[in-house]
Amino acid sequence: MNREEAATLENLLHRDIPITRAMGIKVKQYDGHELSLGAPLSANINHKMTAFGGSINTLTTLTCWGLIHLILKEAGLQGHVVIQDSSIRYLHPIHGDMEATCQKPPQNLVKRFTELYRQRGKARMELSSTIYQDDEIAASYIGRYVALRQPDE
Amino acid sequence: MNREEAATLENLLHRDIPITRAMGIKVKQYDGHELSLGAPLSANINHKMTAFGGSINTLTTLTCWGLIHLILKEAGLQGHVVIQDSSIRYLHPIHGDMEATCQKPPQNLVKRFTELYRQRGKARMELSSTIYQDDEIAASYIGRYVALRQPDE
Repeated sequence: MNREEAATLENLLHRDIPITRAMGIKVKQYDGHELSLGAPLSANINHKMTAFGGSINTLTTLTCWGLIHLILKEAGLQGHVVIQDSSIRYLHPIHGDMEATCQKPPQNLVKRFTELYRQRGKARMELSSTIYQDDEIAASYIGRYVALRQPDE
Repeated sequence: MNREEAATLENLLHRDIPITRAMGIKVKQYDGHELSLGAPLSANINHKMTAFGGSINTLTTLTCWGLIHLILKEAGLQGHVVIQDSSIRYLHPIHGDMEATCQKPPQNLVKRFTELYRQRGKARMELSSTIYQDDEIAASYIGRYVALRQPDE
């Protein structure tokens, strides 16, 4: 992902979901396979001087959301991506700035997703996101999303 | 809950977890059994003009957290309450201001929780939280929390 593309996704998040600005959420990197989003501890701190669970969940939720947005974009598609359900495990307190990563599922699943979306205007995808700290998984998230074609698309 | 107690919990949230201020989270009501926290749509909106999933999860997470805080307080105890894991289903888009509720579990579970905490300085509790809209459940959340006595308590 070049700088311009990162800025585009970040601007989209900040424009469409204003609370992401207050949280200081940034697009860190995208290499065509893995997307990472970051957020500073300072804006997302709790009473134990660690990252607030709500912010941890929001960051992982958006990392997966962003990757589906990019998958659609790369396939020349656009649509609204909606979260259906998710679960998260908070395994260790996070003492610094956070970086959440989300990787594309196997290519056959990506292909099935975009083909279903083309045919039916609706397709589901399950993704996981992880926040590491000191070589350990500090938070582990799974979310299910649905991409929906809008009437005007 | 009288106004003073509601203000105390709200001030605690706003002081300890600053992002709750940007989200406009308020303590709405506590009757000794059920706690409800609210958040305005405006501060938590997404690109579809509905409530952002991350904010929905944060509000339900904090409603359960707040109720455990009150359970400990009512038992004359204090401790840090930490979330371990949670899951959430986003069942309907939320088009207005949000109100999440969380009810105490059966009395025997509350008693076991406070007794374990007294004995061991550590106890777990599972709670659910719900956001209604137009008489339907729009979001359904379950979280597991652990209360931990701090060395200086």
